[in-house]
Amino acid sequence: MPITADQQAEIDALRAQTRPTLRAVSDGMEAHLYRAHPVLDHGFVRVIDYMGDDAAICQAARVSYGRGTKTVQNDEGLIRYLMRHWHSTPFEMCEVKLHVKLPVFVARQWIRHRTANVNEYSARYSILDREFYIPEPSQLAAQSVVNNQGRGAALTPEESARVLEILKGDAARTYDHYEEMISDDGKQGLARELARMNLPANIYTQWYWKVDLHNLFHFLRLRADAHAQYEIRVYAEEICKVVADWVPAAYAAFEDYRMGGVTLSSKAVECVRRMIKGEQVTQETSGMSKGEWREFMDGVVG
Amino acid sequence: MPITADQQAEIDALRAQTRPTLRAVSDGMEAHLYRAHPVLDHGFVRVIDYMGDDAAICQAARVSYGRGTKTVQNDEGLIRYLMRHWHSTPFEMCEVKLHVKLPVFVARQWIRHRTANVNEYSARYSILDREFYIPEPSQLAAQSVVNNQGRGAALTPEESARVLEILKGDAARTYDHYEEMISDDGKQGLARELARMNLPANIYTQWYWKVDLHNLFHFLRLRADAHAQYEIRVYAEEICKVVADWVPAAYAAFEDYRMGGVTLSSKAVECVRRMIKGEQVTQETSGMSKGEWREFMDGVVG
Amino acid sequence: MPITADQQAEIDALRAQTRPTLRAVSDGMEAHLYRAHPVLDHGFVRVIDYMGDDAAICQAARVSYGRGTKTVQNDEGLIRYLMRHWHSTPFEMCEVKLHVKLPVFVARQWIRHRTANVNEYSARYSILDREFYIPEPSQLAAQSVVNNQGRGAALTPEESARVLEILKGDAARTYDHYEEMISDDGKQGLARELARMNLPANIYTQWYWKVDLHNLFHFLRLRADAHAQYEIRVYAEEICKVVADWVPAAYAAFEDYRMGGVTLSSKAVECVRRMIKGEQVTQETSGMSKGEWREFMDGVVG
Amino acid sequence: MPITADQQAEIDALRAQTRPTLRAVSDGMEAHLYRAHPVLDHGFVRVIDYMGDDAAICQAARVSYGRGTKTVQNDEGLIRYLMRHWHSTPFEMCEVKLHVKLPVFVARQWIRHRTANVNEYSARYSILDREFYIPEPSQLAAQSVVNNQGRGAALTPEESARVLEILKGDAARTYDHYEEMISDDGKQGLARELARMNLPANIYTQWYWKVDLHNLFHFLRLRADAHAQYEIRVYAEEICKVVADWVPAAYAAFEDYRMGGVTLSSKAVECVRRMIKGEQVTQETSGMSKGEWREFMDGVVG
Repeated sequence: MPITADQQAEIDALRAQTRPTLRAVSDGMEAHLYRAHPVLDHGFVRVIDYMGDDAAICQAARVSYGRGTKTVQNDEGLIRYLMRHWHSTPFEMCEVKLHVKLPVFVARQWIRHRTANVNEYSARYSILDREFYIPEPSQLAAQSVVNNQGRGAALTPEESARVLEILKGDAARTYDHYEEMISDDGKQGLARELARMNLPANIYTQWYWKVDLHNLFHFLRLRADAHAQYEIRVYAEEICKVVADWVPAAYAAFEDYRMGGVTLSSKAVECVRRMIKGEQVTQETSGMSKGEWREFMDGVVG
Repeated sequence: MPITADQQAEIDALRAQTRPTLRAVSDGMEAHLYRAHPVLDHGFVRVIDYMGDDAAICQAARVSYGRGTKTVQNDEGLIRYLMRHWHSTPFEMCEVKLHVKLPVFVARQWIRHRTANVNEYSARYSILDREFYIPEPSQLAAQSVVNNQGRGAALTPEESARVLEILKGDAARTYDHYEEMISDDGKQGLARELARMNLPANIYTQWYWKVDLHNLFHFLRLRADAHAQYEIRVYAEEICKVVADWVPAAYAAFEDYRMGGVTLSSKAVECVRRMIKGEQVTQETSGMSKGEWREFMDGVVG
Repeated sequence: MPITADQQAEIDALRAQTRPTLRAVSDGMEAHLYRAHPVLDHGFVRVIDYMGDDAAICQAARVSYGRGTKTVQNDEGLIRYLMRHWHSTPFEMCEVKLHVKLPVFVARQWIRHRTANVNEYSARYSILDREFYIPEPSQLAAQSVVNNQGRGAALTPEESARVLEILKGDAARTYDHYEEMISDDGKQGLARELARMNLPANIYTQWYWKVDLHNLFHFLRLRADAHAQYEIRVYAEEICKVVADWVPAAYAAFEDYRMGGVTLSSKAVECVRRMIKGEQVTQETSGMSKGEWREFMDGVVG
Repeated sequence: MPITADQQAEIDALRAQTRPTLRAVSDGMEAHLYRAHPVLDHGFVRVIDYMGDDAAICQAARVSYGRGTKTVQNDEGLIRYLMRHWHSTPFEMCEVKLHVKLPVFVARQWIRHRTANVNEYSARYSILDREFYIPEPSQLAAQSVVNNQGRGAALTPEESARVLEILKGDAARTYDHYEEMISDDGKQGLARELARMNLPANIYTQWYWKVDLHNLFHFLRLRADAHAQYEIRVYAEEICKVVADWVPAAYAAFEDYRMGGVTLSSKAVECVRRMIKGEQVTQETSGMSKGEWREFMDGVVG
């Protein structure tokens, strides 16, 4: 269970009382505030705060004095125009702050997105909890034979069972040793900043992560993509749902132009033109490499 | 007058109605929302939105589930500790969005602070207003003879008068010409993106500027400093007042450790030690250059 | 003339003498070093320094110990793969430092690209030269009627002549006044930081600008685009030529996937599929707005 | 041994042959290029490339056409002035690219410095080596009782021995299991992106890390500080030596103003003034908290 009873009580207390504000309010986002959306076996995503809504994007794009919106329809059209023409700065005018609990190996991918603010739980200062990500058997898969950095076919039940036995056993043993090393019961106890080095990458950490909407969309495009590692993708998918409630028009434009969009090379554009004219184009006559051609046929021709 | 009656009506409409929120609310900041604080002759600073308060800084530093604060006193102590030890990430958890109207030559200095989000009024798309910064006579000063990039003694009344005559005359003439060039009355009218090149750097522009509290403090330390150019300093000083109302504990720590603080070089530390022991130290025996010694005597010994 | 005889002598001195280095060397880039490539009437682009070459991109992608390249062909394939899949970090491993002389209104667009390092000539410290951008008559065009922020049809000769007369006259007069105000001949002379406010946006400034290859490509995609304002586009086009000589494989991939590439929305992908199958698709049956459909027909169907 | 014979051969090949360049060359840095400076038991720091030298800092600060330096003495004075007055942009004009091999828990601290470019060895694509950081017994210390996030007194020999036994045993066992899980000998073999989650944080990773000199100084000030964790401090100290050879004047200014410098709060400045006048100041009369007073007495009064 990702949230203890005490933590739930703190969350409930925060959700019990509203205060008046003059700021832009997104009702869809208010419903998410503080709630823990479970991800994986012990992880979660929680919205701690947000700034702005769909109208705020338009207000900034127009550098206006008031709410800046004429009609909702106008705003949607403007947002689609901004997204289509890569006008990123108005989307930067919205900001969200999340509390995320996630395995360390996921955190290591996540942190590569640099344009964000992060406060991570300190394992120099505090003791990490005994919580490890142990995959569902259905997620245990072999190295992919087509994609050199992904996973392919599911493991056999026997192989899965052996993997789970290893992961659980090593997690338990290394955490027992962590506790033994830092224990000051009858001895000094190793410094926490040293003892943590024994803990494997599936232990959970947590952080506050704050990011603007433009950079969040960039994160989501890469991490909610089918080629992203499953364990970060499930976080991205959970965040997608939150963003869809927060800024519905911006999210719809993002889905159409980015998530569902496809970038064609100049060679691919040429092929599309020939194909539309009825010409039969093959990889050999396309000017593309085999890899490009496969991706083109999968992504565009369908 | 920086704000027209229509704009004031839009502002009043926004301030007339509060909405409930579950988010952290800073009462001090709510009082500022949307109001235009006048700066220079036609400029202003307006708070459009904000995220977080003093407690949010502590909450992030503790990566906590609830409000995260034990007592206000605890929070103040933690904030002072974070500021003193250059822990910047918790301060990044607060964010503010401002609408600023400012002369172009001020905007050019301001934009050098890169870690912020900006949407500027587009002079390719829109027509700039006939509003120019004309300094108060008291602000007209000669090139400094000690500081190669600042201003020194006030000009004589005759010289001031001549300068103002020039600035006003050229502003009026170049704007007349701007209007003439873009006018499509009986002719095509030059494109706005071209016509704007004729406008001098004291014309006003405006933008939405969004920044986190850590980077805002960095901006304020440099731009509210006595060595900053007066025309940007008055904006920084106005923002200082807003921040003091928004996050009083963080601002107090900023004042003590940054604005009022002094950085000593290792040579200066050595001199301080010798002076505290009662030794007479001179520039010659200090190991410092003349410039460093003068700054040391002014800034520290007082 | 953008470069004086003295400056040319300095450049010649720098180009007269090579020194040995163990670093990666790009012969194509060595030929550009220090030379001023003229842009507009008084501007230029000069390469001051660079880091890395095509092989360095691959070396970083492979985190290798040696030169990291097997064959040039392998490297080209890897670079195309990285570009196609938006792997940006290996391209960040190359860096270039330029000296650029450009009109202020161009500089104001340019600086919006924040992920770069800049040192600009200081008009608080130094006196600006009497150099203004005066467009070629062929560049004088009316406000576009289709694109709200661009230029359309050329002005008539009479209108052009009047515009040039204005621009030249105001440039001369405001610069005369600038000189008069700062002159300390028989009077104090106004501080430079104040006097500069009278100068129009077509005066030239200059800066050192340093950027990594990934962010440079982003700059070039937006600013060498046909929709960019002509006066910044000519700088971007000049830089494109330099980059093509510096990292030929990376530049070729950039041309194919970015400059010549097209991004399709999910709706556009659907239309392409239907069109390839021989279906007649119209704006009405496309699900796209009129603007989107026009851009789709222009950009993809051709 | 951090470097294999094959890797050493690659390094030797790179160092065997110089090429001519017109760029700024730092002889001190050329001597470091490609060599692996050992850090900890299996780690290293290697310079892969660099841009600029002391003169390049001054050249950018002056936005000059030629080498920009009058005399070495002038340059040193300018560099000290820039450092003292927090002019950061000229230092950003130098850049360095390092290849670093380091334990994962060190990498996790390191990556928090966001303004840098990174390519890390991919454990989704490749198999990690069996190399773990095992501390020297002298580095095994208890949790500090004064600093809540550091280490204090050394462990007893018995306790140290037990810790080392645990670390070595768990490293060996988890790596054996990693190999067993990914092995496709008679079975499919678990995907690498999953198997890596079993590896503890003292396993070594490696990356290419590129950063400008201003941001590198910021990194070094925090990480070469006595309060930084030992395991990252040794990397920072090794890099300090490299930088001292690369840009001697800038490094000397950094040592004087940053590493050896002290920041006084406004309260501390007031105390210094009173002490210089001969007054006896105590914590009670200082206006400082106990923690601040202790740091003030240690850092300044000495």
